[in-house]
Amino acid sequence: MVLTKLRDADKGSKSRRPSTQQRIVLRSIALFNRYGIPNVAVDRIASDLKISPGNLTYHFKRKRDLIRATLETVKQSLRLALERPVSVESARQGAEYLIRLFRTFWEQRFFFNSLAYLLTDDPRLMSEYTVFSRWVIDTIESDLMYLAQRGYFRQPVEPNNFRLLAENIWSQLLQWLRMQQIESPSATTPSDEAVYSAALHLWSLCHLWMDRAFADELLKHFRRLLISRKRTQR
Amino acid sequence: MVLTKLRDADKGSKSRRPSTQQRIVLRSIALFNRYGIPNVAVDRIASDLKISPGNLTYHFKRKRDLIRATLETVKQSLRLALERPVSVESARQGAEYLIRLFRTFWEQRFFFNSLAYLLTDDPRLMSEYTVFSRWVIDTIESDLMYLAQRGYFRQPVEPNNFRLLAENIWSQLLQWLRMQQIESPSATTPSDEAVYSAALHLWSLCHLWMDRAFADELLKHFRRLLISRKRTQR
Repeated sequence: MVLTKLRDADKGSKSRRPSTQQRIVLRSIALFNRYGIPNVAVDRIASDLKISPGNLTYHFKRKRDLIRATLETVKQSLRLALERPVSVESARQGAEYLIRLFRTFWEQRFFFNSLAYLLTDDPRLMSEYTVFSRWVIDTIESDLMYLAQRGYFRQPVEPNNFRLLAENIWSQLLQWLRMQQIESPSATTPSDEAVYSAALHLWSLCHLWMDRAFADELLKHFRRLLISRKRTQR
Repeated sequence: MVLTKLRDADKGSKSRRPSTQQRIVLRSIALFNRYGIPNVAVDRIASDLKISPGNLTYHFKRKRDLIRATLETVKQSLRLALERPVSVESARQGAEYLIRLFRTFWEQRFFFNSLAYLLTDDPRLMSEYTVFSRWVIDTIESDLMYLAQRGYFRQPVEPNNFRLLAENIWSQLLQWLRMQQIESPSATTPSDEAVYSAALHLWSLCHLWMDRAFADELLKHFRRLLISRKRTQR
């Protein structure tokens, strides 16, 4: 739902027009993604939206209030994407789910790419972030356990465990978002090539944990969805 | 050699006193590590060193010149640490080498944690960074191939390969540096606990690639060097 609103706002759709407050938040996310939070002044957001600075200040007194509001939207949409009730019945569904997830994180990359800026000297936000990131890792870990129950993943040999694998997956995802910011700051959507790179590295990370046939299938679907599609578009 | 100089400067050693220019670079690295490049003004570096702003400007006309000089020091010390002619003959040597490497990267973390700030709108630095990071990944990859030749690592099953593993190791290292910055901004040396966390996650990442006995030995040495030592210190 959050994503639908985001797209409507971007297209300036008249049908379900978002409130001024929503428009401010969504435009801020777009600008933060593009330029980084520290480089976007509040006045610029207002002028970009063709509203007066006073109107913006009416909704969000300080930039920090606006940032907090964007973070609520980020958390909502990531929780939605991760919680999506997927009972992965096949490698195909797994590949589709992961690709959606990569794209959703990419759309909210400003948040993860501004962590140092956001969390320094803000203990409240720091503890919120800690809770959120722990929840993400919990979710990945329980997905891995579910996949192991279904025989798609092998049980880990102690002292290795799914917690460490989940943390490594999370690190890798964050690092991908960061390099995307550096390499393609002005992109408004992640290229299939970029998503495939994230998918392939995740696949490599999990390869030896996975059942051989499942691993082969998963990669086949990543390629089908991200490589052949690209060729077709050209 | 670079590291020795760094320590001398920190201790204010009189015996091999570094030049003013070297002192400026080393103090800048310390302050950049602590506060992040964007938050350290040139005047602050001068006052921290008890020299006049004019003296600093005499050596480095603009902040960007100073940043470039720090990057030369970073690259030198990382190349030295990675190139160290280690023919890893045992898991013990491997563990010791990796721990040194983690510490060296940690000492230069400001660089990796400021990539977005440094590389945006600076195509020359961007291409230098691309060359450097490719060299790091090449080095990791050839280390892995060497370990495979000695039977410590298994040969990858295509399409998985040591290149992907090396890139994942590099991602993980960068993400660790970044979280260290956020979690312990004022630390002047990485805790054994933090280094152990990096070592354990790297170990987990490589676990299923490694010969079983080598993997067990490696972890044993990480624990011996980083956990028992900590207990002894208390």
